[in-house]
Formats: sequence, C-alpha cells, structure tokens
Amino acid sequence: MIERLADSDLHALVEEFFRSSFSTDNPLITEAVRRMLAAGGKRLRPRLTLLAAESCGGTAREHLELAAYMELIHVATLIHDDVVDQAATRRGVNSTATDFGNRVSVLAGDYLFAWIFKNVTARYDPPIPHILSATLAAICDGEVLQLRAMGRLDLTIDEYTDVVAKKTASLFAASAECGAHAVGAGPASVDALRTFGTEYGIAFQMIDDLLDMTADETTVGKPVGNDLRERKVTIPLIFALQSGDAHLRDDVRAFFADGDERREAIARIATGIQQSGALTATRTAVAEHAERAVAALAPLAGGPARAELERLAKALTLA
Amino acid sequence: MIERLADSDLHALVEEFFRSSFSTDNPLITEAVRRMLAAGGKRLRPRLTLLAAESCGGTAREHLELAAYMELIHVATLIHDDVVDQAATRRGVNSTATDFGNRVSVLAGDYLFAWIFKNVTARYDPPIPHILSATLAAICDGEVLQLRAMGRLDLTIDEYTDVVAKKTASLFAASAECGAHAVGAGPASVDALRTFGTEYGIAFQMIDDLLDMTADETTVGKPVGNDLRERKVTIPLIFALQSGDAHLRDDVRAFFADGDERREAIARIATGIQQSGALTATRTAVAEHAERAVAALAPLAGGPARAELERLAKALTLA
Repeated sequence: MIERLADSDLHALVEEFFRSSFSTDNPLITEAVRRMLAAGGKRLRPRLTLLAAESCGGTAREHLELAAYMELIHVATLIHDDVVDQAATRRGVNSTATDFGNRVSVLAGDYLFAWIFKNVTARYDPPIPHILSATLAAICDGEVLQLRAMGRLDLTIDEYTDVVAKKTASLFAASAECGAHAVGAGPASVDALRTFGTEYGIAFQMIDDLLDMTADETTVGKPVGNDLRERKVTIPLIFALQSGDAHLRDDVRAFFADGDERREAIARIATGIQQSGALTATRTAVAEHAERAVAALAPLAGGPARAELERLAKALTLA
Repeated sequence: MIERLADSDLHALVEEFFRSSFSTDNPLITEAVRRMLAAGGKRLRPRLTLLAAESCGGTAREHLELAAYMELIHVATLIHDDVVDQAATRRGVNSTATDFGNRVSVLAGDYLFAWIFKNVTARYDPPIPHILSATLAAICDGEVLQLRAMGRLDLTIDEYTDVVAKKTASLFAASAECGAHAVGAGPASVDALRTFGTEYGIAFQMIDDLLDMTADETTVGKPVGNDLRERKVTIPLIFALQSGDAHLRDDVRAFFADGDERREAIARIATGIQQSGALTATRTAVAEHAERAVAALAPLAGGPARAELERLAKALTLA
C-alpha cells in the first residue's frame, strides 16, 4: 500500500530536508540561503512536486530532494529579485542584498542556480534537467518582459497573462510536471500536472496582485501598494483601467510619471481600483484559472494526493 | 583525412557562428549579449574546445555550437561581473550594466545561463551538462572567495591559486575537457586536456594580473591599477609583499584602508611592486604553469591541433 501523507506532514518533511541536507561548498552562500529559507514561505512549489508524485502512484518521502530543488530555484530568483528591486526586506526579515550586499547576492544567486543544475544533472534523468533549465529561462524572460511593461497603462490581459505564465506559473508547472516524471508517469499524467501547475500559478500570481491592494503589511510581509510604487501593472489595475474611469487613469498616469510615493496618493488610487469593481473581476479571473487547474487533473486517478491538489487550487478562490 | 584548421580560421568560424546562429527568445537579452560579443575578445575558451576536439581526432567545424557555449558562459559571467564591480566599461565599450541598467543586466545574465543549460541539456549527452553546471558553480564559488580575500595582505600563493583555479581556470578546463568528450575521447585524453585547461587558465589569470600593473589602458581596455583600486590581492602583489619591503606593505595597507584612489598612490605602489622583483617572480610562475600545461598534453597523439595548444600555452610566457 502506498503511504499517504497529510499536507502538514509534507511541509514538515520539506523543512526537515532543508535543515538536515542543504549545504554547499561555500559557507557564505550556504548561510545566505539558510537565512532566506528560515524566513519562511509556504513551500508550495515542493508541495506540488510531492503531491504530483503521490498522485501518480509514488511516495512523497522518496522525492524530497527533487522537491527541495524547486524551492531552491525559487529562493535563487528571490535573491536576485531583491537586488533587482533594491528590496530592503523579504518575508519581514532583511533581504540577502541587505545582509550580504549586492555583490555577494548576485554571486550567491548564480552559485545557487549552478549548484542546483550540478546536482540535478548528476542525479536525475532526462527530461528533468532540461525542464528545470528551460523553466529558469522562462522566469528570467518573464521578468525582463515585466520590467519592460512597467508603467504601461495599455497593457492587455493577454500580455499580462503571458508575463505571469513565464515569471510565476512556469515554476509551478515544472514543479508538478517533474513530480510526475520522477515516478515515471505517462504523458497524459505529465500533461495534466503541467497544466495544473500553469493554471494554479497564474491564479496564485493574481491573488498576490490582489493582496498588494487589500492586505496589510503584517499579513503579506511587504508594504501594501508596493506593486503600484514599483510601477507594476497588475491584474486589478488592468481591470480598473479597462472600466473606463478617466479620473483614475489620469491619477495613475500622474503617479507613475512623477514618482510620487506619498501614502495618500497610493491610498487614493487603491480606493479608485476598489470602486471600479476590479477586485471582483480579479476574483472571477482567479476562480476561472483555479477551475481550469482542477479540471486539468481529470486524467489522474482519484485519491488523497489529487484531492489535496484540488483543495489547494480551490483555496486560492477564498483569498 | 581529417580537416585541419589554422588558428585564425577557428576564430573566424566562432565569430561567424555567433553572427549567424546566436539568438534567444528575448530580443532585449539577445541585443545585450550581441553587444558584448561585438566588443571583441580573443575567444580563447571556444578555441580550446575546438583544438581539444581536433587533437582527439575530431573536426572543429562540427563542434562550433559547443565551443560557442563556452564563450557564452564567459559572457554571462562578465555581464554579472560588471554589475558586481559597478564597471562602466568592458573591453573599451559601455558595459551591459551601463547600457541596460543593473536590473536588466542581472536578469540577462541569469537568462543567458539558463538558455545555455536549456540548450546543452537538450543537445549533449552526459557528462557535458554536468561539467558545465559544476564549472559555473566553481566560478561563482571562486568569485565569492575573491570578494572575501579583498584587501587581505596575508593571502598566500596557495589561497590565491585556489581562487584562480575556480574563478578563471575552471572554464578553460571545462572548455578543453568538453571538446574531448564531444568526440568520444578516452579518459587519458580527457584528463590530459582538463589538466591543460587548468594550468593554462591559472597562467592566463597570472598574466592578466601582471598586465594590470604594466600595460596601458588602450592595450588591455581597462584602467591600469584597476585591481589595486578594487583591493584585489593579485599575484604580483603577493610576491611583492612576501619580498619583505615593510614600506611597501604599509603603503598598500593605507591605500586599501582609506580608499585613496589618487593616481599618484597607485603609481607609487606599482613602482614598489616592480622594484621588489615581483614581476619577474610572476613571470616565472606563469612559465611553470605553462610548462605543466604543455607537459599535460603528452598522452595525446602529435599533430597540428596539439601543436597549436602548445603554442597557446607558450605564448603566455611572452606577455
């Protein structure tokens, strides 16, 4: 009989794996990564890998290392993001760039990417090494596209979705897909889990955008209105701009143009976005992607792991 | 009969390959990399790959793509180095960080690493993908070690050599080794070429250190005394400090401590290093590593490619 694990057990297993098994040849880099891991995080990407492996008949415990690489790719991109965004904090504690400086942070991120690929190419058969390097390329491509889209009030939902599919959803897709490959699942299961990851990831990013408008600092661990301050064109903003409120559009254009970072300006724009109905429209879009994620699982056999994946997707609609 | 190519032909082939075949999915990143490639460079790493392939019985033309990846790994590290070092220029033209900003530069370097691994994992059999990712890890490890060694007047030759073996020689070693693997060479030839690359790379870095003390800006495309300004402890400086000149030691310590960047201070220290005999000692060390590089080739059959590798190593002793 295949051992089944509750979701809380998966989280504990991943944490224990990091505590006991993560180390690199370079002590400074190991320390930087350990601090980033200690700052928390929901470990959703490794969770998808383990649940994907279980939903295809495997055992989570046997794929902890592969799952950990998914989180470490995420951590490496966060280390570089904090350099790129000049972020002082991450998850409520000092960013790597703050504690170690930009120089070490750039190199630590590079080293971590290389260390992951070094291990993955040594331990996993094709196509896993290729999927992970293609995923990292997609993430960077998406981030460059996002930089170029900053402040663009004419950004369409399709353009937004293309950026998000690359910068965020690609790693969720790879996490789920690799879990299936690791247990030798067939193409139908692999495709199902890849699509699940993509749709889940898009919905996840949309919720992240939404929380930037609605949650308080203690909940999300970063300042509210942060996306606006960085001139990121997020999904609630796109819906709000499409609602035809000319006053709001002028307000946002002026805010993006003059770098006005006063809290009042952000609060006024946030209120305008709320009044436009954009938050409801965002929740509807999230629900659509979450439904597609759940529907994608149809080819898989039923069972606790598949049920847990469904629950994770549905949980996004409750945010 | 195996086709043999003159060294100038190899350079032209690599250039032509970049012009005709290099492109990524992201136009901004493609442009950044093309500019870096257009700025020049001796293409020594791809040259080692092609000569290694030929010296093991292969044909250079058939391995241009693999050779190009060696140069592209180098280019990606340079893009990040210029962010880390806040360098305004590279090879006499604007650095990527200057033209595109640090944000795009960090992401462009990441994308390029990922793009290389994506292609390498799709097109080359083990152990080539693993060698390249392990090499990138070694380069980053070496660069972090170098950052930590900055300003350390007690750095030993062994510590210096460890840093250089990682940050510089590892890619030369991989370039030569992968050329051998690509043509299915046996372990003796693979080891011979790897050792050649390591020794060549160490000698190459020592010459680079030497030129920082002796060459003028137009020759090396960067300011003379740049290493001193960055508080890098290079091989001529180590030899000079070991020569026992207390005055020079105090001078260097003061220079490193107070960030004095006046040309007079650099000129005075450079003169002190020259008078200590450190440049001659550096040339002797270069000659030793170049000799080991040549000696390492003994297991290979004679022929034009091996002769050209020997010529490249000996050329370092003439700098």
